Amino acid sequence: MNPLRIGIVGARFAAGLHATNYRPLLGTKVTLAAVCARTRSDADTFAKRHEISRVFHDYRELVASPDVDCVDICATTAAHHEIAVAAARAGKHVIVEKPLTGYFGEGSEDRAKMLASALRHCDEVLEAVARAGVTLCYAEDFVYAPPVAKLRRLVDASGGGILELRAEESHSGSHAAYAGRWRTSGGGSLLRMGAHPVGAVLHLKHHEGRRRHGRPIRARSVLADVAQLTQLPAVADRPRAMRTEWEDVEDWAVTVITFEDGTKATVHANDVTLGGVRNTVTAFLTNGVVQANITPNTSVLAYAPDARAWGDEYLTEKVETRAGWQFPSPEEDWMRGYPQELEDFVDAIRDRRAPLSDADLAREVVEVVYAGYLSAASGRRVDLARS
Amino acid sequence: MNPLRIGIVGARFAAGLHATNYRPLLGTKVTLAAVCARTRSDADTFAKRHEISRVFHDYRELVASPDVDCVDICATTAAHHEIAVAAARAGKHVIVEKPLTGYFGEGSEDRAKMLASALRHCDEVLEAVARAGVTLCYAEDFVYAPPVAKLRRLVDASGGGILELRAEESHSGSHAAYAGRWRTSGGGSLLRMGAHPVGAVLHLKHHEGRRRHGRPIRARSVLADVAQLTQLPAVADRPRAMRTEWEDVEDWAVTVITFEDGTKATVHANDVTLGGVRNTVTAFLTNGVVQANITPNTSVLAYAPDARAWGDEYLTEKVETRAGWQFPSPEEDWMRGYPQELEDFVDAIRDRRAPLSDADLAREVVEVVYAGYLSAASGRRVDLARS
Amino acid sequence: MNPLRIGIVGARFAAGLHATNYRPLLGTKVTLAAVCARTRSDADTFAKRHEISRVFHDYRELVASPDVDCVDICATTAAHHEIAVAAARAGKHVIVEKPLTGYFGEGSEDRAKMLASALRHCDEVLEAVARAGVTLCYAEDFVYAPPVAKLRRLVDASGGGILELRAEESHSGSHAAYAGRWRTSGGGSLLRMGAHPVGAVLHLKHHEGRRRHGRPIRARSVLADVAQLTQLPAVADRPRAMRTEWEDVEDWAVTVITFEDGTKATVHANDVTLGGVRNTVTAFLTNGVVQANITPNTSVLAYAPDARAWGDEYLTEKVETRAGWQFPSPEEDWMRGYPQELEDFVDAIRDRRAPLSDADLAREVVEVVYAGYLSAASGRRVDLARS
Amino acid sequence: MNPLRIGIVGARFAAGLHATNYRPLLGTKVTLAAVCARTRSDADTFAKRHEISRVFHDYRELVASPDVDCVDICATTAAHHEIAVAAARAGKHVIVEKPLTGYFGEGSEDRAKMLASALRHCDEVLEAVARAGVTLCYAEDFVYAPPVAKLRRLVDASGGGILELRAEESHSGSHAAYAGRWRTSGGGSLLRMGAHPVGAVLHLKHHEGRRRHGRPIRARSVLADVAQLTQLPAVADRPRAMRTEWEDVEDWAVTVITFEDGTKATVHANDVTLGGVRNTVTAFLTNGVVQANITPNTSVLAYAPDARAWGDEYLTEKVETRAGWQFPSPEEDWMRGYPQELEDFVDAIRDRRAPLSDADLAREVVEVVYAGYLSAASGRRVDLARS
Repeated sequence: MNPLRIGIVGARFAAGLHATNYRPLLGTKVTLAAVCARTRSDADTFAKRHEISRVFHDYRELVASPDVDCVDICATTAAHHEIAVAAARAGKHVIVEKPLTGYFGEGSEDRAKMLASALRHCDEVLEAVARAGVTLCYAEDFVYAPPVAKLRRLVDASGGGILELRAEESHSGSHAAYAGRWRTSGGGSLLRMGAHPVGAVLHLKHHEGRRRHGRPIRARSVLADVAQLTQLPAVADRPRAMRTEWEDVEDWAVTVITFEDGTKATVHANDVTLGGVRNTVTAFLTNGVVQANITPNTSVLAYAPDARAWGDEYLTEKVETRAGWQFPSPEEDWMRGYPQELEDFVDAIRDRRAPLSDADLAREVVEVVYAGYLSAASGRRVDLARS
Repeated sequence: MNPLRIGIVGARFAAGLHATNYRPLLGTKVTLAAVCARTRSDADTFAKRHEISRVFHDYRELVASPDVDCVDICATTAAHHEIAVAAARAGKHVIVEKPLTGYFGEGSEDRAKMLASALRHCDEVLEAVARAGVTLCYAEDFVYAPPVAKLRRLVDASGGGILELRAEESHSGSHAAYAGRWRTSGGGSLLRMGAHPVGAVLHLKHHEGRRRHGRPIRARSVLADVAQLTQLPAVADRPRAMRTEWEDVEDWAVTVITFEDGTKATVHANDVTLGGVRNTVTAFLTNGVVQANITPNTSVLAYAPDARAWGDEYLTEKVETRAGWQFPSPEEDWMRGYPQELEDFVDAIRDRRAPLSDADLAREVVEVVYAGYLSAASGRRVDLARS
Repeated sequence: MNPLRIGIVGARFAAGLHATNYRPLLGTKVTLAAVCARTRSDADTFAKRHEISRVFHDYRELVASPDVDCVDICATTAAHHEIAVAAARAGKHVIVEKPLTGYFGEGSEDRAKMLASALRHCDEVLEAVARAGVTLCYAEDFVYAPPVAKLRRLVDASGGGILELRAEESHSGSHAAYAGRWRTSGGGSLLRMGAHPVGAVLHLKHHEGRRRHGRPIRARSVLADVAQLTQLPAVADRPRAMRTEWEDVEDWAVTVITFEDGTKATVHANDVTLGGVRNTVTAFLTNGVVQANITPNTSVLAYAPDARAWGDEYLTEKVETRAGWQFPSPEEDWMRGYPQELEDFVDAIRDRRAPLSDADLAREVVEVVYAGYLSAASGRRVDLARS
Repeated sequence: MNPLRIGIVGARFAAGLHATNYRPLLGTKVTLAAVCARTRSDADTFAKRHEISRVFHDYRELVASPDVDCVDICATTAAHHEIAVAAARAGKHVIVEKPLTGYFGEGSEDRAKMLASALRHCDEVLEAVARAGVTLCYAEDFVYAPPVAKLRRLVDASGGGILELRAEESHSGSHAAYAGRWRTSGGGSLLRMGAHPVGAVLHLKHHEGRRRHGRPIRARSVLADVAQLTQLPAVADRPRAMRTEWEDVEDWAVTVITFEDGTKATVHANDVTLGGVRNTVTAFLTNGVVQANITPNTSVLAYAPDARAWGDEYLTEKVETRAGWQFPSPEEDWMRGYPQELEDFVDAIRDRRAPLSDADLAREVVEVVYAGYLSAASGRRVDLARS
């Protein structure tokens, strides 16, 4: 079988992460066929580093290229749905970074309208994909992270029911300027960080339902709270070690999800947590407990009196100091599930099956997150439209 | 100075815990002067074990006894407020187990009425105490648990602001029959278990406010969700290793508290968590993070292939098996703060000052818990009455 | 470049582990060309499972086969050196499971003679390899295990000196019958288990020396103690949950290594440790500490009251019960470094360079282990022959 | 019964630790009757802080004082045995800080002579105590540390045999000048730090023997290695974050003890370990494993980007930086067993029974440590004289 020819849209952080993690598949299953970036130098540098022969500066050209079988969308979130629709219409398979899409306007907009707009974007993508008969792969790496995959296998083996899930992604704040504005980021911590743990808990209940009843157990209602904690007058005069420049987006969120079967999930996502990124998922079963600690975990511990001791060696995402005890991730891409994710995507496309992290999950993450915004703004539980 | 003469109402678990933890104070600061229990044999056995000379069978007699300076209420929760009012009116200092009081009727009652009733009970106690000029000591041991005390000192030292607190008390379910009925227990997990972590987070913000501004930072609103997870049809046919006999009370709760300064707390309390009790408090500061793990922690680890290997030696509260790896508590009363709590109470009464765990905390815990019930039932954020 | 054609000698556990972990390399870098096992059915089953076209029953035929470029020796330890010599003489590259070789006779033999015999075996292999100009790859996976690899990178980055290393492989005892007899196993815990942690610490000092001075820092002397703890009369009447059937080999060992630069390593290796395998390496540096926990670590935690809850899902090597808290390994082969090891071997052979785990290491592990036996038997520190 | 009247010899760190930890016993069981220090101002300051009425400047006067029932020796180690003998001869009970005594001369002295000299000192004390019929209390707090006490109770409950013990006390080096010279300190890491973990493992086997056979299981032979790792030329040019000023004493030691029943203990003690003090004891049983982590453990975790964040609040002994993740001890004196130790001593003296940490232990610690020095110097296993 011929390798799948990937065209990557974007040449920044996420694109580099994908290109790097395609490597084990190169030569056999995958060819990096094209890259597209508006900034000419970015595209050229990227193409050179990853040995990509075709370079585009308009995603429409990449999408139209006969040398591309699958469009891997690593562009800014606001552009996801437009590119995805175009790719699908051109008959190309679609890989899209999290979140699938959202609402990209002023943070002062009514949350019900945000939710409607974000879901409309989702549905446009899903319809285009369905019509074209192509595969949509939703790049939620938590689904593939080995600790979460082990958790899933243990839950499957247990025969127990999931009563509650808890999950989190938090750290001390993205340094990207666009992350501070709703117009460019589609929201704050709940969307940008929360898409990961929300994706993980929705996936695990989808999976449980499919195994047991042949159809996913979906979220039924959402109760959430969000805040701009770093902007509170009470802390304005205190030493603050996290990012504090947020325009109209929240830096803290908690979401309580009730599933169709009445079980629960609690998800934390914030940009105010010091000490390194927390990527965790815990399942409380009727007959057991399983905790997946993507990071931090104790596979490696390191201590140095001097913050400079470890030189350029990477520890883990977002530690504000490298002194004292630290929990370095032995191989962060692997521990987070990137190579596993891309392999499943490529196999799914070749086998014409849905990937483990699929279109249903992509849409439901957007739904839960924006229902969360609506809940937080209204102070009410939000019931999700379910037929 | 003469020892404080304690009269204990109750002769069951909590009473025994108190009697045991008064021991370091006996002879110098404290005399166990009297015990009261309706069941004659219970009272006699207890008096004998703890060398208590006076035995009563009606709390009114103990309260009236001239040999008692301080009434330590370890009776059932439903009787707390009546005994406390009587003790205060008799001019006796009052120590009362958590929670101070609550609503004790049918679980089907309207939550707003529950909240009003519970607060009325609180206010009766607080008014009686104030009028009599006696001291009310609220027996919330989390306030005194050494890991939490260390957390408090570290937070004080840091000069940082508390952005979010997370706390939990969960295990696999009290075995007491009364715990399953609202009429006798005043609620489910949120009241019975949640009073501890709710007490801890309210205390820490009260403390922060007093240090900084001379007055407590109080809870302003509550968002909560509760459920009877073990009763869901979806899990009825699964192996369930936790208690499942709950009448009209919840076995799972999560509470999100917003404080007057806009900062947050998330509190979990449930009876569906396997693997031993979780008693934890974490503070996310503007310039640091502190985690207090009362249990589990790694001060002792033990492993046995055979569940019977450890014989009668205590491990920790509520482990369903004693096989495999376990996290035994080296000295659970101490680690939970019981001796420290009672010493502070006795000192506070002698010094005519408020104890660290005081009447304000006792009332606010009840307020937050029942506001939580109202929030969960209505699906709305509940604003607390603040003048 | 043509794929490297691997011929595997052996069709049992280690062979299966290798065959499985070659998979990511199949098609591009590697072909599984042949397998050899004396038992016809074993060979056939293995060949079928791993899609291997050529099957041999005498290693000499595999070694002579023109379809094989590299002989991967997964046979019993006692046969290693003979096969390795034959393979090298046939001009084939050699991959050999740990330990490279040893002394295979009665456990009552004089330890100095054992050491001499084992080193002679080593030297025969090394000379045959050198003469043939082929590559010897020593399959010590600890060298490649991601936590150890991260430790190595952190140590490199630190610029600090390694003062002491501690490492261990222990569990509750191999179930293989041959492991209990010196004649078949070449020794007990110190050789069979200890080869891993001894390999790790020697490698790390070799690596430090090569980076700093262009040549390895080698072991200079060995002080060791061994015992048959499970056979002591003092414990014969006690409940014993580990393997207790050992003929003439030890079930417990500790080794203290002094390196040429005066720094130290302490290595534990035993078959009496309950609770799951311990695979750990810690480096105490002049300016930091790094701990690598291959297993156990907290990337996944699981708890079940019932030992049968996890069904057939693998937890980790050698847990005597599956109840209680456990530390499952999320993907054990990866965490132990098997795929990384095989990839380095294949690349090293193609690039005509030494692999990270090389012939020098293979020999020095044997030297240190048997010097340890001599030390334990004589109660004296053993100085290693160094030119 | 009258309180025991304690006379403390010494007014520095250890004396303050004792005085502080007598507090729960003051008024009932204990009176601090006298203090003795050569430096007048030290004695006066100490007496004032701890409300001690009698002050001496010559220990002979304190020992002779009719107001003193028990002499608590917190003087420098070199003076222990002389004071202890004098106290016993004066009919006073004796509490002595660890180690009981040692050899105090040049580090170049022959190790066999050191051992003989140290044992002679021990025997003088033990004979004086026996002749006077007073009680000797050996202040080894590890015996009383709650995690170790819990370990002991779990081992007792298990009915399993102890196969191996591992224990350690290590940190980055005492700052006291006297600790660097044999003449004043009696040795290096092995004596000064190692007395604790050696004491713990000897105690646990003594205890096991007494429970099972009515007499202690004692150490039979010792194999040890020591080094001055910080002085090695190989690390002289590297960044070194630990103390490096050692004259004639070692900064690193490992000791392997074989007990009379053939079981083993491995003890690490060094002054080269960064990241906070390690005080740990692990028991590997025939039917289980128990780990006692006095420090570090996870009862409290704290993280700060800025090393100054925690102000003056104590974290734990010997952390070189206060930045990054830390493992603060919630109440270090309690966790290390000081108040428990002193209470047992006072009770033992009153009840005319041996304390848990007794004269036998005190002597055997000295024997094992100096046998360790002999072993390290000779490169041979040292058999202990046993009748």
